[in-house]
Amino acid sequence: MFDRVFNFSSGPAVMPEPVLKKAAEEMLNYEGSGMSVMEMSHRSKVYDAIIKEAESLLRKLMGIPEEYAVLFLQGGASLQFDMLPMNLACGSGTVDIVLTGMWTNRAYAELKKLAKPHVVASSEDKTFTYIPKLTPEMFNDNADYVHVCWNNTIYGTRYTQIPPCKAPIVADMSSCILSEPVDVTKFGCIFAGAQKNLGPAGLTIVIIRRDLLGKQPEDLPVMLNFDTHIKNSSLYNTPPTYAIYMCKLVLEWLRDLGGVEAIAKVNRRKAEKFYAFLDGSDMFRATVSGIDRSIMNIPFVTGDNDLDARFIAAAESAGFKNLKGHRSVGGMRASIYNAMPEEGVDRLIDFMSEFERSERAK
Amino acid sequence: MFDRVFNFSSGPAVMPEPVLKKAAEEMLNYEGSGMSVMEMSHRSKVYDAIIKEAESLLRKLMGIPEEYAVLFLQGGASLQFDMLPMNLACGSGTVDIVLTGMWTNRAYAELKKLAKPHVVASSEDKTFTYIPKLTPEMFNDNADYVHVCWNNTIYGTRYTQIPPCKAPIVADMSSCILSEPVDVTKFGCIFAGAQKNLGPAGLTIVIIRRDLLGKQPEDLPVMLNFDTHIKNSSLYNTPPTYAIYMCKLVLEWLRDLGGVEAIAKVNRRKAEKFYAFLDGSDMFRATVSGIDRSIMNIPFVTGDNDLDARFIAAAESAGFKNLKGHRSVGGMRASIYNAMPEEGVDRLIDFMSEFERSERAK
Repeated sequence: MFDRVFNFSSGPAVMPEPVLKKAAEEMLNYEGSGMSVMEMSHRSKVYDAIIKEAESLLRKLMGIPEEYAVLFLQGGASLQFDMLPMNLACGSGTVDIVLTGMWTNRAYAELKKLAKPHVVASSEDKTFTYIPKLTPEMFNDNADYVHVCWNNTIYGTRYTQIPPCKAPIVADMSSCILSEPVDVTKFGCIFAGAQKNLGPAGLTIVIIRRDLLGKQPEDLPVMLNFDTHIKNSSLYNTPPTYAIYMCKLVLEWLRDLGGVEAIAKVNRRKAEKFYAFLDGSDMFRATVSGIDRSIMNIPFVTGDNDLDARFIAAAESAGFKNLKGHRSVGGMRASIYNAMPEEGVDRLIDFMSEFERSERAK
Repeated sequence: MFDRVFNFSSGPAVMPEPVLKKAAEEMLNYEGSGMSVMEMSHRSKVYDAIIKEAESLLRKLMGIPEEYAVLFLQGGASLQFDMLPMNLACGSGTVDIVLTGMWTNRAYAELKKLAKPHVVASSEDKTFTYIPKLTPEMFNDNADYVHVCWNNTIYGTRYTQIPPCKAPIVADMSSCILSEPVDVTKFGCIFAGAQKNLGPAGLTIVIIRRDLLGKQPEDLPVMLNFDTHIKNSSLYNTPPTYAIYMCKLVLEWLRDLGGVEAIAKVNRRKAEKFYAFLDGSDMFRATVSGIDRSIMNIPFVTGDNDLDARFIAAAESAGFKNLKGHRSVGGMRASIYNAMPEEGVDRLIDFMSEFERSERAK
């Protein structure tokens, strides 16, 4: 029986403890309304203030200009793999995509059904352990958009440069949104499942430049049309009201910490420490090297499956949870999202040092 | 400032207080796991037990046989208006639909895009205040399915008889699921947004006879294909994990109360009392009469818009919330879902009697 563990899950993932405490306190009665946020009509004044504040906070924290709509949707990034081509591949119909892991593979599979995809580059040759070097001539200038995954949760890579393309960039930022400042105006669309840095699962944020829309076919299903959700301020039908409220609490927590610049410093420090430890270890090593290293998801291995398993079991017993790597990479992975306290990383490093010493002494 | 109000919202709606209390208590640490349910990987053992138990409870409470799959999806009933024809209108392509209100109108609009709809009957001539009488010759025997809305949240009507059709019946039970026993085997599919009788918004339950599937086109988007979710036990991508957990708590609460038979008795008693009061009142009257009266949503009017507004304001102040009727019906509506305690109905009736007396005395 644990009080609170250190949870390195890749998502759904650790949430800020003050946010969970506030949610628990307000569960039966939100600000004197006499009801739980879960019980509120999505068309009530009290709920309207919640969803509006969530949008306003996100706009301020990320610097999202008015030319972009902010949508609160359902279905995860996976449904966006369909909604994006349905809504945006309405010009030439071609979509450029850079393959950097399982999530772009899934997006690519959907693009094959709904558009004419063109693979710009792929890092599959080295198990997706790097971001391909991208040059202007690799892109299709008349593509409707370019699909990229900004941070690859499974493989632990991330982009550090804006791809040199002419078509609008559509970036899956599910596992890195709000982890570091990004210049939103460099993107046509940023989308993210909430369950890593934004809140609970069941909410998807879509930030989209309004002028990219308007060419959808008339028979596009109403729920899959971004215009429906823009016109109705994400209230065409009942949105995931409680998940949006939790997202608002997470955004308030981040604002009170000093915003994205402030958390980025902590995130970089956490990641640097952890990579420094891995690079100095004789037992553990990171699977990604160089500038492409993610600061959110850090896969690592010992090179010995039995030792990996023993380490994971020992870590679990000591309260370091969900360190098992994705089956396609093996080994371990530490996901250290915004809500993972620096102490969690420090304690994990200490535990790993100690584990290494005791194994070597055997 | 209220402690807890009586919340007559049509959805998201009142939830059982013991469920909210349990959720608050477990918010930071679920059963000694050291984490919130919101923070759990959807692929972890601890979470797997939650989603499996939710399914098992629903199967027991509704008597759902193995020939039916139970899915936990996102997007609300509105997304089902698209997914249903995409997955089921793959034979003749025709779909029969009975128009009984706004939600069937929305389903019909989507059917026009995705299938060949045939309107069996409509009650639009009398503002949807009744369920049309249905006879076998009204249906298209080779339709792929028949779309009906079993309880009409806005207009306050409900079906009491199984439509006499040969094609499988697909029933939107968003606002009546678990309110009374239904024979699942009489339906091809039952679907429901969770935010009335099942839990918070952001979760959609689909109960579907497995043999109706398998004819979908190969290029159907993976997230919109029921087979994807059946094969992956609703875990193809991250499901709305916390909403499913809340649904499990609601189902446990219902089981502990004695199940659907037991709650149906309370529901019928609540509705009968309220209709009896309306039928006996000189000021208020129900907009629906006879057997089609819903036991979940009861619209009523005074016939005087100013008086309606005065009543709603007085009720609000007294802690009876969300009694305003839908704009298309006007007046008032009391939604008295499973979680509305009988005391709430009794107190509302008392308040209305008192209001009537004091208005008459003016």
